[in-house]
Amino acid sequence: MPLREVTGGGGRRVFLGFVVVYLLAFVVKVDGDVHLWPMPASVSRGSRTLYLSNDLALKTHGSKFSDGSGILKDGFERMVELVRESRSVEGQVHGSDNVLAGLHVVVSSSNDSLYYGVDESYKLSIPATGNSIYGYIEASTVYGALHAFETFSQLCDFNLMTRTIELHGAPWNIIDQPRFSYRGLLIDTSRHYQPLSTIKKVIDAMAYSKLNVLHWHIVDRESFPIEIPSYPKLWNGAYSYSERYTVADAKEIVQYAEKRGINVLAEIDVPGHAISWGIGYPSLWPSANCQEPLDVSNELAFKVIDGILSDFSKIFKFKFVHLGGDEVNTSCWATSSHVNKWLDNHRMNESDAYKYFVLRTQSIAEKHGYEPINWEETFNNFGNKLNPKTVVHNWLGGGVAPAVAAAGLRCIVSNQDKWYLDHLDTTWQDFYMNEPLKNISKPEQQRLILGGEVCMWGETVDASDIEQTIWPRAAAAAERLWTPFEMLAEDPKQVTTRLARFRCLLDRRGVAAAPLAAPGRGVPLGKGACLRQ
Amino acid sequence: MPLREVTGGGGRRVFLGFVVVYLLAFVVKVDGDVHLWPMPASVSRGSRTLYLSNDLALKTHGSKFSDGSGILKDGFERMVELVRESRSVEGQVHGSDNVLAGLHVVVSSSNDSLYYGVDESYKLSIPATGNSIYGYIEASTVYGALHAFETFSQLCDFNLMTRTIELHGAPWNIIDQPRFSYRGLLIDTSRHYQPLSTIKKVIDAMAYSKLNVLHWHIVDRESFPIEIPSYPKLWNGAYSYSERYTVADAKEIVQYAEKRGINVLAEIDVPGHAISWGIGYPSLWPSANCQEPLDVSNELAFKVIDGILSDFSKIFKFKFVHLGGDEVNTSCWATSSHVNKWLDNHRMNESDAYKYFVLRTQSIAEKHGYEPINWEETFNNFGNKLNPKTVVHNWLGGGVAPAVAAAGLRCIVSNQDKWYLDHLDTTWQDFYMNEPLKNISKPEQQRLILGGEVCMWGETVDASDIEQTIWPRAAAAAERLWTPFEMLAEDPKQVTTRLARFRCLLDRRGVAAAPLAAPGRGVPLGKGACLRQ
Repeated sequence: MPLREVTGGGGRRVFLGFVVVYLLAFVVKVDGDVHLWPMPASVSRGSRTLYLSNDLALKTHGSKFSDGSGILKDGFERMVELVRESRSVEGQVHGSDNVLAGLHVVVSSSNDSLYYGVDESYKLSIPATGNSIYGYIEASTVYGALHAFETFSQLCDFNLMTRTIELHGAPWNIIDQPRFSYRGLLIDTSRHYQPLSTIKKVIDAMAYSKLNVLHWHIVDRESFPIEIPSYPKLWNGAYSYSERYTVADAKEIVQYAEKRGINVLAEIDVPGHAISWGIGYPSLWPSANCQEPLDVSNELAFKVIDGILSDFSKIFKFKFVHLGGDEVNTSCWATSSHVNKWLDNHRMNESDAYKYFVLRTQSIAEKHGYEPINWEETFNNFGNKLNPKTVVHNWLGGGVAPAVAAAGLRCIVSNQDKWYLDHLDTTWQDFYMNEPLKNISKPEQQRLILGGEVCMWGETVDASDIEQTIWPRAAAAAERLWTPFEMLAEDPKQVTTRLARFRCLLDRRGVAAAPLAAPGRGVPLGKGACLRQ
Repeated sequence: MPLREVTGGGGRRVFLGFVVVYLLAFVVKVDGDVHLWPMPASVSRGSRTLYLSNDLALKTHGSKFSDGSGILKDGFERMVELVRESRSVEGQVHGSDNVLAGLHVVVSSSNDSLYYGVDESYKLSIPATGNSIYGYIEASTVYGALHAFETFSQLCDFNLMTRTIELHGAPWNIIDQPRFSYRGLLIDTSRHYQPLSTIKKVIDAMAYSKLNVLHWHIVDRESFPIEIPSYPKLWNGAYSYSERYTVADAKEIVQYAEKRGINVLAEIDVPGHAISWGIGYPSLWPSANCQEPLDVSNELAFKVIDGILSDFSKIFKFKFVHLGGDEVNTSCWATSSHVNKWLDNHRMNESDAYKYFVLRTQSIAEKHGYEPINWEETFNNFGNKLNPKTVVHNWLGGGVAPAVAAAGLRCIVSNQDKWYLDHLDTTWQDFYMNEPLKNISKPEQQRLILGGEVCMWGETVDASDIEQTIWPRAAAAAERLWTPFEMLAEDPKQVTTRLARFRCLLDRRGVAAAPLAAPGRGVPLGKGACLRQ
């Protein structure tokens, strides 16, 4: 039986006459009848319909993973709930040759620690026939298995006639792994406090999109909402008594995210973007009239940073911490006489002092076991003076990543013209087409690009509008970061329908993902079916 | 000890020297230190702080209500979850004289049926001292007790220092009941399909606001999304295969709502607003070129209505059904020759036929045990010809309710200039100030105004924006409908802070309620604390 290989975009259409992988199956590389988002690395499907058993079982024999903390079991139960979509599954499914009885998951690593670069790959196969049909999931780690659950959930639909959940297109064979190990989304809890329930909902939808790093820009000029036991007056800089996170709250967020395969990257942005620190500790301000950058001449600044990062290291177990370093206007230092005097004594100009601040903060982070991430100004200004472990976080424009990689440093791409979610006129097509490896051709330099991140700055988002500002545009970027380059569409038109389906899926799952036809955070332009919005 | 009675708004400030109700208590009639929304009929509070036991208990001894279906227990558990707000309650609260051990609920009716006009009153008292302090809730029905739970939840706050949940202001004495028995919110699933999860979230927030009728405008011109077993091709008029509700889905919505004290009012809008019916049954259209109103000359139209209402009566147990009847343009009948002939044969002009259609539909509804609600055009056109049980649903303007009451019919107020949520330039202040009894002074006529309803027409709302379009404006109307007239603010400025608090509470509970400062569905205008948005 000849197999047809269909490639999308600029790909070639190849007919293979001799390869029989599965009876009646054909390999679909991009789109076609595969509605998964993001598109897996390799997919083949058939055309048979199976019905999900009303008590879909989870089997794990042969697995080395003991699931002591319930990550796998909870993930499976969440997935079954998602597949139901609050529907009443009234139809009775009885044992026969078209019933999917459950999923058999084999995880080969016993370790459940979610470290950076953890193996997220998985294989998912659904046989088309058999007596007691089980889908089969193979993964190195439980986090790969969670991705497989998400993929599986997107294969299922509620059949309104039979009142059962069905899975079209068996047999399925999916082999999948992410293109980039860092697939981030930034939230900003300084410009607006985000309630815990809101952050959890953002995490839920990140898992649906296979994003894996929640970059928590916790603190900024406007408010300091997190408890720092070492310096307990810092959170006096919060907007209000209740708009604060306790250490337990932060741990709860980290744990919630980790159980979904998502790391939390904590940020303190120094020495700029830190006015709120001085509410609790005014001497961190160079003077009452000059409230930022933090007073480079005051040892307390570094003690406080040390205290924060010490406290962070007990909460945020990710390999990296983000130290900011962007938009530092040092003119205020020069006009504060005691700082100016300190600069003279130390034979530094303002730029030296900025560098000194950044590097010393990096050392403190390193002492607490972190590798530092800094916004790109630190690279643009100090280049090879930075700690060699520095990850440079691009944001200003599109050309920085090649320079960072050429300098041998690692980079995360977030160029604001394409990947800032608060730019409402940036379309999902822009998000989709933004290529992190643009103009980087050498493999060893490409490897230095850890991935990318879309940024939801908080000036005009709170719990009432954060979801529709993030989604579906963040999901468009998520495919760029997950799917092999050669399988990405060259023209976003090719994925419009598939992304629209995913957006409607998010809506049905209770995520307020905005219509595709509107700009960022747009509303439906008129009445009609979800897929046409 | 003198008590201070504080009245808000245009009220007077009265000092009473001799009335001692509770030691250290003072009576607050409007606002002041009472942040409840909607404001209860009577509130007094003290100044003592209690800490909620980490395992708050529910006691029901003395109650005649057996709670066979778990309405009370589930409501209590939901309330405890809400009060937690996803916080980590780490603080240990041990038995002492400032610990609230639980709530003792006494419901005097054993009946859990949620009929129209069910007693929703409750009394809630929280003692300030004692050995094992229990809050005490007295209610005629379990639905009053659910309101008491909501009120109680709004008295509680998380203390970030002690990491416990506390209740300020004990002793509390609250006596409460709604001003109107009909406090509605319309959703429209024809212009956009709303997923089940979305409808449930709308119901959740209705319960927080003490609204009690979900008016489900299921069908309209654009789509027919619900299964009608008697006429199974009707839902062929849905937007898509999956954008449909099965009977089981509808039952699930009704049950979900009822467990929260909310009735579901189903609507079919006839003879206009019904083009979608003809997708499945084209002969309901007068002709291919004339698709509405439904063909008055075709008996099938009434058979189908009979089938729908027969099926509805098995799902929607509310006393009322909504039969629409608005915006009927009959010119199409006159230009369809067979309809025109039928009119001649029956000696009717188009207006007579419109009346005939409405009255016959009312009779069918009555046969199925329903009392009919119709949009106001039916009253404006046919007045006393309507079934005397008709409830007239105002929408066009502000002057109809007095005329309806003067005619001895019942009325629900939804004047579009103030209570249409799709009018984005209508502010929460407009919603708050819209008085259903305006220009109705006779008590017997006032009693004919069942209440009011805010309407969320669906042309530009789907799952992505429905919440922020509804809230907090619907909550502003909810206080108008719940709170005694004399306790309502005469100037909405007096309640801004309290409503802002409620809006922030909704946000923390996962409801995307929009900022007060913006117009309908507005976003935060800039960074800042939740209460200032």
